[in-house]
Amino acid sequence: MRIIGIDPGLRRTGWGVIESVSGRISHVANGVCESRGEDLATRLLSLFDQLTDVVARMAPEAASVEHTFVNKDAAGTLKLGQARAVALLVPARAGLPVAEYAPNAVKKAVVGVGHAAKPQVEHMVRLQLPTATLAGPDATDALAIALCHAFHSRAGGRLEAALAAASGTGRAAR
Amino acid sequence: MRIIGIDPGLRRTGWGVIESVSGRISHVANGVCESRGEDLATRLLSLFDQLTDVVARMAPEAASVEHTFVNKDAAGTLKLGQARAVALLVPARAGLPVAEYAPNAVKKAVVGVGHAAKPQVEHMVRLQLPTATLAGPDATDALAIALCHAFHSRAGGRLEAALAAASGTGRAAR
Repeated sequence: MRIIGIDPGLRRTGWGVIESVSGRISHVANGVCESRGEDLATRLLSLFDQLTDVVARMAPEAASVEHTFVNKDAAGTLKLGQARAVALLVPARAGLPVAEYAPNAVKKAVVGVGHAAKPQVEHMVRLQLPTATLAGPDATDALAIALCHAFHSRAGGRLEAALAAASGTGRAAR
Repeated sequence: MRIIGIDPGLRRTGWGVIESVSGRISHVANGVCESRGEDLATRLLSLFDQLTDVVARMAPEAASVEHTFVNKDAAGTLKLGQARAVALLVPARAGLPVAEYAPNAVKKAVVGVGHAAKPQVEHMVRLQLPTATLAGPDATDALAIALCHAFHSRAGGRLEAALAAASGTGRAAR
């Protein structure tokens, strides 16, 4: 499964694409969309167009977006909401299922603890994806969000298999 | 000039289209897009698709969106930001200039005072657009937002003409 992780931001939206094949995870690409334009509508459109292009080129099968908890002032929250809308809309338009994870869930999945510091997250992203050249902090976060979805899907798959085996429906446990 | 006014909301986004020809304003259509779907991405996509369809059918030349000041809890502000992003993105994608007005500016333009109550706004929308059948409060607000842009453009046009006349560049005052 090819997964795109997206870390939304009005100025800079990070993205990272990974591939998870039979539980083995590899890096595909990562980058940052920087919004251009004077007014808000133009900036949102610029993010929308760039992200649409990334999704078309990368052809992911699932998307994972950070569900940012609100810890900013009201104006910052409104801006973040606008950027998140683009991050959710673009993969939904491409027909992808869009999963949302809270920042603590991302940290917990990638580092093992919910309150990990940024450098720890980056360290674990580098360990998991040694071939990746990271395009900056937003792209690193986006890869962490994609990894989180891969781990959750894998765990979900294992659970399904275990339940199937336990109920005797005959699907072999992986 | 044909103007679409948009009152963004995650559950219901109101829209209203008016025409302003030589200072005379008439109603074209108004309505409400209701978002459908379980998850946020699907709901945003549903709003996006419906509003894209409205803009394509109505072929406005300018858009006017309420710049809502934040008076809600953080979660509400985030939701509003997401709905606003759709309201800004859709006309920008259609190549329209998108103006933003604060709620008080809309009330001031339509009623004459910045702190007018909802029924007063509705009353003035009905007076200005007597042929309109209003599709509900969100559509009424959207028409008020469109009227605000029409009045501002008209005033801007008058100012331009006056400045041109005063500087002797020969453009006749309207």
